[in-house]
Amino acid sequence: MIDFKAVLEKQKPTESQNSELKAIASSIIKKTEVVVKRLNVKARVLLVGSVAKGTNLASGDLDIFVVFKREYTHQELEKLGLRIGHEVIPDGREKYAEHPYVSGFMGERKIDIVPCFELTPNARIISSVDRTPLHTEYVLKNLSESGRDEVRLLKLFMKTIGVYGSEIRVAGFSGYVCELLVIKYGSMMKVIEAFSSTRGAMKFDLQEGTGEPEKYDSPVVIIDPTDITRNAAAAISEENFSRMKINSRLFLRNPEARYFSADREYKPESFRERGTAARVFILEKPDLIEDILFSQAVRFKSIIVQILEEEGFSPIASEVDLSDQIEVLVECKIERLPGTRVHYGPPVDAKNAMDFINKWSGKSLLGPYVCGNRLCTDIPIENRELDDVVRENLKKFSIGKNIDHLKEKMQVLDPVKNGKKYLVIGKFYQKELK
Amino acid sequence: MIDFKAVLEKQKPTESQNSELKAIASSIIKKTEVVVKRLNVKARVLLVGSVAKGTNLASGDLDIFVVFKREYTHQELEKLGLRIGHEVIPDGREKYAEHPYVSGFMGERKIDIVPCFELTPNARIISSVDRTPLHTEYVLKNLSESGRDEVRLLKLFMKTIGVYGSEIRVAGFSGYVCELLVIKYGSMMKVIEAFSSTRGAMKFDLQEGTGEPEKYDSPVVIIDPTDITRNAAAAISEENFSRMKINSRLFLRNPEARYFSADREYKPESFRERGTAARVFILEKPDLIEDILFSQAVRFKSIIVQILEEEGFSPIASEVDLSDQIEVLVECKIERLPGTRVHYGPPVDAKNAMDFINKWSGKSLLGPYVCGNRLCTDIPIENRELDDVVRENLKKFSIGKNIDHLKEKMQVLDPVKNGKKYLVIGKFYQKELK
Repeated sequence: MIDFKAVLEKQKPTESQNSELKAIASSIIKKTEVVVKRLNVKARVLLVGSVAKGTNLASGDLDIFVVFKREYTHQELEKLGLRIGHEVIPDGREKYAEHPYVSGFMGERKIDIVPCFELTPNARIISSVDRTPLHTEYVLKNLSESGRDEVRLLKLFMKTIGVYGSEIRVAGFSGYVCELLVIKYGSMMKVIEAFSSTRGAMKFDLQEGTGEPEKYDSPVVIIDPTDITRNAAAAISEENFSRMKINSRLFLRNPEARYFSADREYKPESFRERGTAARVFILEKPDLIEDILFSQAVRFKSIIVQILEEEGFSPIASEVDLSDQIEVLVECKIERLPGTRVHYGPPVDAKNAMDFINKWSGKSLLGPYVCGNRLCTDIPIENRELDDVVRENLKKFSIGKNIDHLKEKMQVLDPVKNGKKYLVIGKFYQKELK
Repeated sequence: MIDFKAVLEKQKPTESQNSELKAIASSIIKKTEVVVKRLNVKARVLLVGSVAKGTNLASGDLDIFVVFKREYTHQELEKLGLRIGHEVIPDGREKYAEHPYVSGFMGERKIDIVPCFELTPNARIISSVDRTPLHTEYVLKNLSESGRDEVRLLKLFMKTIGVYGSEIRVAGFSGYVCELLVIKYGSMMKVIEAFSSTRGAMKFDLQEGTGEPEKYDSPVVIIDPTDITRNAAAAISEENFSRMKINSRLFLRNPEARYFSADREYKPESFRERGTAARVFILEKPDLIEDILFSQAVRFKSIIVQILEEEGFSPIASEVDLSDQIEVLVECKIERLPGTRVHYGPPVDAKNAMDFINKWSGKSLLGPYVCGNRLCTDIPIENRELDDVVRENLKKFSIGKNIDHLKEKMQVLDPVKNGKKYLVIGKFYQKELK
C-alpha cells in the first residue's frame, strides 16, 4: 500500500509554507487595493488559482486578479491593468496572454497581477481569462476539505506520467480539470479507476442535463459548470488522454509510490544505439511567452521535417525542447542522398517535348529517355548531405517573425558522431511508459 | 542526305545470299513434302515469314509451315507436326509456342518447321500461328517490289531505337506490322512522318469501313486485313509507341545514317557515377522458350523490387537482361537500414493493450509508448544489409517452377564496389535517346 500521507508531506506545502504564502498574498492584495483606490478604478482584487483553492503543490505561483467592472473598454482595462501591475511589482515584466499583465517575483515566489472583466456565470465573456474568478468560486464551494489533497495527488500522478498542464506545449489536464474530476468522482483513486475503465471518449456534465457533452468532438469533454457552453477539457489531446488511460491501468495493476514522484526532469541521453541518421538543430531562445514560443518552435520542427521528407531523407521521428534553447531533434533513415534522381519531363506528345530533349541532352547522368508516355532524365543531385540540404532549403521558409533572424546562427549537430547528450533527446526518451 | 542504298547494301542479304537462302528453303520444302507424302498426311508445305515476303534482313531465319487440313484433331497435329520436324531436321530440338515445333540449324541458318491448321480469311482460328500463311499471302499480294526495301529500312530504324520485335520481352513492332505500315503509307519516310505528327493513339484499317479500329484501347491499332476482328499491333506498349513517335521527330529534325545502324548490341557500363546502392542479382538461365523465360525473369525482378520497397530500401530503378544469364539490376536509395523501426501495437482501448506492454517492456530500444490513441514501441532491426534482406525474404516467394530451384545459387554483386561491367547495366543505359 502506498503511504499517501508521506507522498503529500513531501510534495505539498507545509503548514508554515502555507501561512507564509497567505501572508504574502494578503499583503499584495492590500497593496493592489490601495493602488486601485488611488487610481479611482472600479475593480475588486482577488486571489485566484490553486493557492486560493487550496489545491496547490509546493511550487504553486500566486495569481492576483484585478476584476474590472464591465463599464471599462478593453483598452482602458489593458492600460490600467498594466499600470496597477507595475506599481505593485516595480521590477515586474509585462507578459502577453489574452490581456497583457505584469509578472514578477517576491523572493522565490512567482506573482502575476492579471486584469480581467467582472463576469456572472454563463454570461457572454470577453476573454477566457475573465472566467478564472468564477472557477475559483465554484471549486471553493464544491470541493471538500479532504478533496483538496486528492486533487494534489491527482496532479502529482499526472505530472509523473507527463499529462499535467493545459499549455499548448503539454496539451494535457489543467488544475481546474483535476478539481472537476475529483468533485465528480470523489477521490484521486476513483478518478484513476474511471480512466482505467473508460473505452473511447470521456464525457460528462457536473450538473446533469444542463450542458450537452455529447455534442463535443474532443476526446475528453467536461462541461464547465460556470459556463455550460464550454468544454473545460478542450485542451487535452487524444494522445494525453490515451496516456492517462493506459497509465491508470498500469498503476492499478501495480500501485507504486513512483507514480507520485512528479519527477519529470528528463535526463539527457545518447542516441547511438538507434543506428539512425540523427541531428539536433539548435536556435537561441527569443524572449516570448511560452505558448507563442512553443508554436513557433513546433513550426520550426515541422518545416525541417517537411524539408527532409520532400528531399527524400525519410524522417522517422522528431522532438522539440525549449528548456534552455530551441532544440529540435530529427531522426532520419538516410544521411546522404544518392547521386542521382529521376526528373520527369512532359509527355512525348506535348509541344515542349523537344525543348526538354534539347535542354537535357548531354547534361544528364542518363537520358533523356522515354518512360511510359513521358520523357524523363536522370539528373545529378548536387546537394546530398542532410545538413546542407536543410540549411539550403530553410532559407525559403519563414518560421515566424521572432525566430527568422536567428536562423543564420542555427547549429546543426550530430549526436551520434559527437557523442553529446541533449535535453531534447532526454525528452524524446521520456515518452516511454514507466 | 542519307545514302539509303549504302545502308541497304550493308544490311540486306546480297543477291548470292538470297539465291543460297532460296536454294536451302526449296530443298527443305521438298524434303518436308516427301515426309508428308510418305506419312500420308493431308497438308501443304509453305515458306512463310520475311524470307517468303522478301522483306528479310541479312540475319533472317527460315520459317517452314506445314499447313494441315482442318479434319485433324489438335493432338494429331501436334504429334504429326513433331514427327515431320524431326525427320526433316534430325538434330533439331522441340520448342513450345502455341503448337510445339522443331527448330534446328542448317549451317548458320536457323530453321523452324512449324505445324498449323489451314485457314481461310476471317475464319474462326484455332491458334494465332494458323494465321501466318494468310499474312504471307496478303503481303505478297499488296506490297510492291520497291516497298520491300522500304520495309527493311523501317525495320532497321526500329531496331536501332529498340522497338522492333513483338516478343513479350520487347513489346514492340512485328515484321508484319512494319509491312502493313509501308503498305498504308507507301514508304519508310512516310511512315516516320506519320508517327512524328501523331498525337495520342494511331488507329487505322487498311480496307476502310470493314474493321472498327476505334473500338480498341491499345495505343496502336491496325486492323489485321486477314482478320477484321484482330488488332495486328496489340503487342506494342505505350512506351514503345512513345519511343517511335519521339525518335521519328528527332530523326526528321536531324536525319542521320546512324538511325539505321541497327546496332542495338549494348555495351557493358559501370555504375559508379550514379552514387546509388546498386546490386546485380544473377541466376543461371534455365532451358525455356524466350517468352516464358522472360515472364519469369520479370517476376523475379518484381519480387526483388517489392521486397526492397516493403523493407524500406526505396528502390528507384530496375532492369532485367537475359543475354547470357538472368541478370536483374536494382538501384536503391539506401544500402543499409537504420537500426530501429517503430512497431505499432493495438489502440490503448483494445483488450490486448496490456499484453503488448508485457511483451515489449524491457525488450525495446524505446517503449512501449503512446502515439495518438495507439501503443507503439521502437524495436531493433537485426537484418540491415540489402543483400541479407533480399536473400532472407526471397525464401518466402515462389518465382516460377523453372526458376525456384536456382534461387539457392543466386549471386548478389555490387557493381559499384567490384567495378565490373554487366550486360544488364548496358541495357539500363541503352534506353537513352540517341
